[in-house]
Amino acid sequence: MYGAFSAVVTALKDAVGSPYDLIPLDMMRYGEGGMAGYGSLCGAINGASAAITLVAGEEHYKKLVTELLTWYTQTPLPTEISNQYAVNHEFLVDELKTDEPLPQSVSGSTLCHVSVTKWCLASGYASGSKERSERCGRLTGDVAAKAVELLNLLADNAFESALSLSEEAETCRACHKKGDDFDAGQFTRGKENCLNCHENPHK
Amino acid sequence: MYGAFSAVVTALKDAVGSPYDLIPLDMMRYGEGGMAGYGSLCGAINGASAAITLVAGEEHYKKLVTELLTWYTQTPLPTEISNQYAVNHEFLVDELKTDEPLPQSVSGSTLCHVSVTKWCLASGYASGSKERSERCGRLTGDVAAKAVELLNLLADNAFESALSLSEEAETCRACHKKGDDFDAGQFTRGKENCLNCHENPHK
Repeated sequence: MYGAFSAVVTALKDAVGSPYDLIPLDMMRYGEGGMAGYGSLCGAINGASAAITLVAGEEHYKKLVTELLTWYTQTPLPTEISNQYAVNHEFLVDELKTDEPLPQSVSGSTLCHVSVTKWCLASGYASGSKERSERCGRLTGDVAAKAVELLNLLADNAFESALSLSEEAETCRACHKKGDDFDAGQFTRGKENCLNCHENPHK
Repeated sequence: MYGAFSAVVTALKDAVGSPYDLIPLDMMRYGEGGMAGYGSLCGAINGASAAITLVAGEEHYKKLVTELLTWYTQTPLPTEISNQYAVNHEFLVDELKTDEPLPQSVSGSTLCHVSVTKWCLASGYASGSKERSERCGRLTGDVAAKAVELLNLLADNAFESALSLSEEAETCRACHKKGDDFDAGQFTRGKENCLNCHENPHK
């Protein structure tokens, strides 16, 4: 969370100054590991969404945050660009945990727990390995870059959503969405891929 | 997220002033409905965790955020205190969606989707109902109050964790936790109740 938030806000602080120089970046430390290691929401998208909202404001944040989350769940991460940055030592950090290209995986979820587990199973690396830690660092760079890309599109008045929710989510959401009709299935809300956790209850 | 964060930070701004008067509260709008309606992390605990980290700092946030999340997953919400505040019109808002006492439920999860669904099923109210909306408002007050309680304990040097993870999580985490041994099951991380999403794979 701190990584993605501070990447965007520090760049704005350097380029623009106030109010971006007044925000205590360390406030965002808690998002790491899906909330202090709890494995809930991925900290990278939590921090990037705060930065998006800070810049885009109440009128625009919703469509950009939704796009960021859907992109995160559907994109092989870390990206090839991120892997190449590491190989070429182009990241703005003194030391990498490894400069090898890392395997990619698609999370299908906004959650740290799911994202890390899928990557570990795809790569064969353990969750406490330096490679997993480096993977999350590269992914954080990818998410910060995507957030800036979305903000730049908004600034150019050129943002249009390019992504759809998963087919599974769209199918279930035909009935199971936020709404007023309990008996029609509107006793829930959300846009994640339902089949990550639920078997199809209508089989 | 905005609700819990602004509750704590506005009180600090009024009592202490700087730096709490410099933080753009609207930056936290994105957390509502589990990230702009995505149904991921509950916004109340996201915002309260930011406030905790802002006050407690890097050295102390982890134990308080972990305690807050575990409390959230195990506590019948909204609390009776919160229901009584509503009945007596003691909340600091001009208008309530309803001033009736509301049914309670235990989420067993940090996620908006799970928390809302369990409450809808327990109460019979739809996810788009004014009662569900009011329920999330009261719950946000409960979470902000808990965060302040934890911060006050820390300030008095009296904080001790009073809660344990769910029995299911502790059982699974005997093998499946963050660590270096992939073959021993350390290809994942997290502290949620595993059986929310997973059947027992060892049966």
